[in-house]
Amino acid sequence: MFESAEIGHKLKKSEYEREEPKLRQALLAAQFELLEKKKFPVVVLVNGVDGAGKGETVNLFNEWMDPRHIHTFAFGPANEIERARPPMWRYWQALPPKGKIGILFGSWYTDPILDRVMGHAKRAEFDAQLSRLRDFERMLAAEGALILKLWFHLSKKAQKKRLKTLSADPKTAWRVTPDDWAHFKHYDEFVSVCEHALRETSTGEAPWHVIEGSDAEYRSLTAGKLLSTSLRARLAGKAQPLSPAAPPPAPPIDARDVLTALDYTQKLKPATYDRKLDKAQGKLNLLTRDRKMRERSIVMVFEGMDAAGKGSTIRRITRALDARFYRIVPVAAPTEEERAQPYLWRFWRHIPPRGRAAIFDRSWYGRVLVERVENFCAEADWQRAYHEINEFEEQLAETGGIVVKFWLATTPQEQLRRFKEREKIAHKRFKITDEDWRNRKKWPLYKQAVADMVERTSTAEAPWHLIAADDKKFARVAVIETLCKALEKSFDR
Amino acid sequence: MFESAEIGHKLKKSEYEREEPKLRQALLAAQFELLEKKKFPVVVLVNGVDGAGKGETVNLFNEWMDPRHIHTFAFGPANEIERARPPMWRYWQALPPKGKIGILFGSWYTDPILDRVMGHAKRAEFDAQLSRLRDFERMLAAEGALILKLWFHLSKKAQKKRLKTLSADPKTAWRVTPDDWAHFKHYDEFVSVCEHALRETSTGEAPWHVIEGSDAEYRSLTAGKLLSTSLRARLAGKAQPLSPAAPPPAPPIDARDVLTALDYTQKLKPATYDRKLDKAQGKLNLLTRDRKMRERSIVMVFEGMDAAGKGSTIRRITRALDARFYRIVPVAAPTEEERAQPYLWRFWRHIPPRGRAAIFDRSWYGRVLVERVENFCAEADWQRAYHEINEFEEQLAETGGIVVKFWLATTPQEQLRRFKEREKIAHKRFKITDEDWRNRKKWPLYKQAVADMVERTSTAEAPWHLIAADDKKFARVAVIETLCKALEKSFDR
Repeated sequence: MFESAEIGHKLKKSEYEREEPKLRQALLAAQFELLEKKKFPVVVLVNGVDGAGKGETVNLFNEWMDPRHIHTFAFGPANEIERARPPMWRYWQALPPKGKIGILFGSWYTDPILDRVMGHAKRAEFDAQLSRLRDFERMLAAEGALILKLWFHLSKKAQKKRLKTLSADPKTAWRVTPDDWAHFKHYDEFVSVCEHALRETSTGEAPWHVIEGSDAEYRSLTAGKLLSTSLRARLAGKAQPLSPAAPPPAPPIDARDVLTALDYTQKLKPATYDRKLDKAQGKLNLLTRDRKMRERSIVMVFEGMDAAGKGSTIRRITRALDARFYRIVPVAAPTEEERAQPYLWRFWRHIPPRGRAAIFDRSWYGRVLVERVENFCAEADWQRAYHEINEFEEQLAETGGIVVKFWLATTPQEQLRRFKEREKIAHKRFKITDEDWRNRKKWPLYKQAVADMVERTSTAEAPWHLIAADDKKFARVAVIETLCKALEKSFDR
Repeated sequence: MFESAEIGHKLKKSEYEREEPKLRQALLAAQFELLEKKKFPVVVLVNGVDGAGKGETVNLFNEWMDPRHIHTFAFGPANEIERARPPMWRYWQALPPKGKIGILFGSWYTDPILDRVMGHAKRAEFDAQLSRLRDFERMLAAEGALILKLWFHLSKKAQKKRLKTLSADPKTAWRVTPDDWAHFKHYDEFVSVCEHALRETSTGEAPWHVIEGSDAEYRSLTAGKLLSTSLRARLAGKAQPLSPAAPPPAPPIDARDVLTALDYTQKLKPATYDRKLDKAQGKLNLLTRDRKMRERSIVMVFEGMDAAGKGSTIRRITRALDARFYRIVPVAAPTEEERAQPYLWRFWRHIPPRGRAAIFDRSWYGRVLVERVENFCAEADWQRAYHEINEFEEQLAETGGIVVKFWLATTPQEQLRRFKEREKIAHKRFKITDEDWRNRKKWPLYKQAVADMVERTSTAEAPWHLIAADDKKFARVAVIETLCKALEKSFDR
């Protein structure tokens, strides 16, 4: 993989000086077209061997283009805030919005590669991480991002020479850290691990470009031209995002599904309800104050048809909790800043740190429910969402997240009763709109969407809990008891 | 001040039970009206003596209203990210947007009060902090926020009793921390410091409400009614934000100002320029890598008429810097999320941590320039902005921020020449719009605005540098040299 980057590529200074102004102008023009159209973001990853000119290239990109519209992020060790969340969280925060160029210096590849080189991660773990990165980049590409992955390489001999040269000059000596020399000792393992990583993650939508780093002119012009060419091609409408073309899931031929299988007659008498609710809330309160909670976080998801009782159920939960412990995230239409980012970005924003809970009143499942039914997104978009969501929840679970998902299931008859009741009560009238009546007509489509959602996203780590909710009392107690069980199960591990 | 909160206020359980449902409904109705109208944010501060029921009240507010639209923040010791920025930064991040209720548990008062009680801050420093908080709240009120400041009080005897009761019950013992007992030892100093703080910061727009905390029913109903009444009054259109009515600054009677006083004929020859620019960039590079930079941050502000050369000057600066060191913030129209917050919020977002620089291409001065001239905001708004901006920059300076503000001053003749040139050059045509021509006609108004701005916001800590910029070469070198001097001056201290 690296052979072609160890052959001593070189460019004459005169040729560089002839080409550079043209490249600069091409880049600037492309950048402004990108900025004006605001159609997609550009994500440039800068990785590779120490001393191969990564920093210089990042600086050069900022110099060639208008630095006002470039977001440069350098990733060192994770800080306090970042360590309390899944590792990918900080990269989500660094994604450029549509129209901008994000340069990620030390990207999502750095930690997995170093962990592997230093022996902290086994080969299987490493492969699992690479597969996750592949999925992440596939998602970015499908969301429209242009991804350019640059790998700067140096042969062992060239790296040693480069580090020595830098150390010898007092002007550049500061750039060689003890870490750089420590890494150099592991050159062979490093290169072998990197080669594996590059091979595993060079995909059609986001291939790696390996650039030999020893000659500044060759390196700079190669990197610049790659960026310019990719930008130009994409602006011209080439290299469109993928459209997976698998057929959508088909309804079961016997008309039975997880929702029809529920027993909607389950009820609780008022006295039983009071007793059970009290007990469940008390238990929940104790559990959330358990010492083990410090290493965990809770992510609750509430979905259901209109008037299913999501809001009132959430209130029964929060009454058992300290207000400092949780945050409720009501999910409505995305804001301007959120629309300029990949779909899941606005949920990543609200991921709780360890020791805290987030309660999502509607969630990322909107993609495979309302957006699917109402054709707010393309079929390819909601089809890929199942896998993206599973990946997302798996990452939460891996960093101590307890993911508990509820579908509050009501019958159309009960919904109708509640709609009519709401129209009668003055202070509840704001809760019922024309849209609710329109959605109601699409009940069969929603039912199919829910069944598919459960089939594809109910996982061992983040199962769906379908709760019969025609009786609000029964549903509330069932939800809190389920939540308690999920916490206990996690604490027992 | 606290006498009326030590008289043993009490409420019968039966009365509480009669009143509570009514209060709850009133609060919920008010909350939804607030949410629907999205006219203003509500900021509730919950402060006071330990054990006086602060936490219980916060939980109760979340229980009474719809917790989905309440943002509850509890402030403990500042974390890594927060410590690298001015102390107020984290409170800016916690401000609720319009339509929402933010409950701040342990607010911007906590640290100044504890610092004073523990003797870390002198009386004069404490007073300066209180005066800053008063200004901050005045700004919030002027921006439309409803501020409700609740102080929960307990007499010394009552506090001791309360802490003992809590400790004795295994269910509540966890709530009494060693810190609480440590604070109790300082009860008398604490109360005396708090009394001073409350007196100094009880203003017309944001008065303190002291509530006796020993009786749960009395405390809860009092706090709830205060919130309900203030919300109701404000929704009904009473208690409007302030409108300072001082006359706007008058133009000088001799028509001379800081801009006319500049020498616009200053020029650099190409060879001199190259030499000087190289030298200045080299120096700037060294300075930003100085060890002392770790404790400092740089905030650069670039303002000027259209085509004054802000962008190209910024590029000359960034070429001397490592791309990881700085971030450029191009200031355009605010986003939806930004419009739901006080004016300065969108700039606080981008404040650099220690060791880093932010370059603002246009800035918070838009308020007293374009927004003033174009009547985008009320006269009262831009008039109060001068003081708010000075406060803001003072806070930056106090935490090691080096604030360097440039006005690139061009003559109308030179602007015209550049406009015409831009229209001729293909790849610069996007840089000239009808708006630029319209703005040009308002030159005299802008001139007056600039003169007022310099007069009112050029401070010792954050002076304005007016740079004659008819010759771009001269301006670029002057800017970088000025920047170097500002860094040296700060390092020498």
